[in-house]
Amino acid sequence: MSQTRPAFADLLDARTATGAHLCVGLDTSVASLPETIDRTLSAAERVVVFNERVVEATLDIAAAFKPNAAFYEALGAAGWEALRQTVAHINRVAPEIPVILDAKRADIGSTNEGYVRAVFDEVGADAVTVHPYLGEHALRPFLDRPGVGVFVLVRTSNPGAGEFQDLLVDGLPLYRQVARRVARVWSAQALLGLVVGATYTRELEEIRADVAPGVPILIPGVGAQGGDLQAAVRANLEAGSRAFVINVSRGIAGAARGENFGDGARAAARELDDQIRRAAA
Amino acid sequence: MSQTRPAFADLLDARTATGAHLCVGLDTSVASLPETIDRTLSAAERVVVFNERVVEATLDIAAAFKPNAAFYEALGAAGWEALRQTVAHINRVAPEIPVILDAKRADIGSTNEGYVRAVFDEVGADAVTVHPYLGEHALRPFLDRPGVGVFVLVRTSNPGAGEFQDLLVDGLPLYRQVARRVARVWSAQALLGLVVGATYTRELEEIRADVAPGVPILIPGVGAQGGDLQAAVRANLEAGSRAFVINVSRGIAGAARGENFGDGARAAARELDDQIRRAAA
Repeated sequence: MSQTRPAFADLLDARTATGAHLCVGLDTSVASLPETIDRTLSAAERVVVFNERVVEATLDIAAAFKPNAAFYEALGAAGWEALRQTVAHINRVAPEIPVILDAKRADIGSTNEGYVRAVFDEVGADAVTVHPYLGEHALRPFLDRPGVGVFVLVRTSNPGAGEFQDLLVDGLPLYRQVARRVARVWSAQALLGLVVGATYTRELEEIRADVAPGVPILIPGVGAQGGDLQAAVRANLEAGSRAFVINVSRGIAGAARGENFGDGARAAARELDDQIRRAAA
Repeated sequence: MSQTRPAFADLLDARTATGAHLCVGLDTSVASLPETIDRTLSAAERVVVFNERVVEATLDIAAAFKPNAAFYEALGAAGWEALRQTVAHINRVAPEIPVILDAKRADIGSTNEGYVRAVFDEVGADAVTVHPYLGEHALRPFLDRPGVGVFVLVRTSNPGAGEFQDLLVDGLPLYRQVARRVARVWSAQALLGLVVGATYTRELEEIRADVAPGVPILIPGVGAQGGDLQAAVRANLEAGSRAFVINVSRGIAGAARGENFGDGARAAARELDDQIRRAAA
C-alpha cells in the first residue's frame, strides 16, 4: 500500500455515501475462466487478465473489491504474484475503491506481524478478514495498523456455521458475544468491522442492532450461496446504518463468459447494484 | 505431495514410536538470519539456505518439521517459493519426517478447496492447522483428504487465548467443547488432531483426558512463550498417550548463530529432545 493511500474508513465511507454497497468478489478459479482468454498465457497470467477486465467493467459500480486468498494460493507463488498484480491494477485504475483481502487469517501475536506485512505491504490490500478464536490480544498486529480495515468473522455464511457460533454463552449465542466484544470492547487503530453472512438474516438483524451504526459489516453469501440481498439491505437501513457492503463473487464471475466477458460481469454487477438500490429506496 | 508419500498418521506414529516428540518449528524471519549466510542472495533464498541447514542438523532428532506460513507470506511470492523449496528439501533428505504447515486456515467449504490445493499440492505439506470457528461442514475439503493430518486449534498458546476459548457453554469452557466435538463427533478421512498450547498446562491435561489417546496433539508455546515442557510431556503420558509433538521454533532458530549455525540448532534441538525424554522416563 503506498504511503499516500487514503485510510480504508475514508475510502469505504466515500463509496457508500454514493449508495454503492456492492462488493465485487474476485474469487477467480482457473477452471472457470472464459475460454476466450489467451491459452498460451500461464494460469496465473490468465487470472490477472480476467481480474483486470472484471475490475475495469465494474469500477463505477463497486463499493469495494474482495479477492479471496485461497483462489490465488491454489496456484502457489505464481498465484501470489497474480494477487499482487490484481490489487496493483485496482489501485491504478480505481484508486478510490478499497480492496478487502479475504484471507481469514489469525495466529499468535508476533506471528501475525508476518501476515500484516503480507496483506498490507506485499499484496497491498486496504483491509483484511480475520478469525476471532485467538482473541484481541493475539490480533494486536492487525488492530494496531493505522489506516486499514480489519473485519472479524462473526457469523459466517456457510451451512453448519452454527456448530460453534450458536453455542449459548450467558444466554446469548457465541456469535453475538463475539460481535459485542469486537465492536464494544476491542480497541484498534484500524477500523474494526464484522463479517456476517446474508444467509442468516435474523442473525444479521440481531448483530446490526447490537453494534453502533458506524461499524461496517461485510456481508457475503448472496448469489450462489442463496443469501437474501433485500433482507440484508433492510437489516442495515432499519438499524440506521449505511456501513455495509454486500459481496457477490460467483454471481458476477459466472456471468463473465465469452469474448466480451467484461460486459457479462458488468451486466451482473449492474443488476445487483440495482437490486441493492431498490431495496434501499 | 508425491503420490507415494506415506500417510501422515503412519509417518507420525513411526517417529513417536522411537520416543521422538520434538517438532522443529521453521518460523524463519529474515531479520534474524545469521550474518554468515551469503548476503548476495535474495531474502527468500537466504531463508531456504537457513532452513535446509537447520533441517539437516536436526533430522535425526525431529518428530516433525513445522514451518509457519506467516513468515513466508511476509516475503510475498518469493516467500511462497521458499516455503515450497523448504518442504521439498525435507522430503528429499528426511522423507520419514512429516511436515506440518502451520497455516491456521479455514473458509467456507468450496473456498477451502483452494487452501487444500495450496497446502498439500503446491507446498507439499503432510498436515495443516485450521481454525474451528466455521465448523465441521465448512472444513470438509480438509477433512475429506485422505492421508493428511488436520490439526484444529483448541487452546492456543497466546496470552488472552481465553477471551473466547474460556467462555462457558453448558458448564464447560468453549475450548473443551471444541476438543470434544472435533475428537468425538467429526468424521474425517484425514487424521484429526488438536492444537493445545504448552502455556496452559491444566487445559492441556483436561483436553488430553477428554479425547482418545490416539488423537494427536500439537503443542506449541515451549521456549520463547514460556510453556512448561515437562508438564506437557507428563500430561500426555499420564493419559496413556504418546500421540503428541512439542513444537519449538525460536528456541532452536535463536541458537543457530555464526558460521556453523547448524551446530547451534542441533545442540538446542538435542537439549530439548533430552528434556522430553527425561520427562517421559
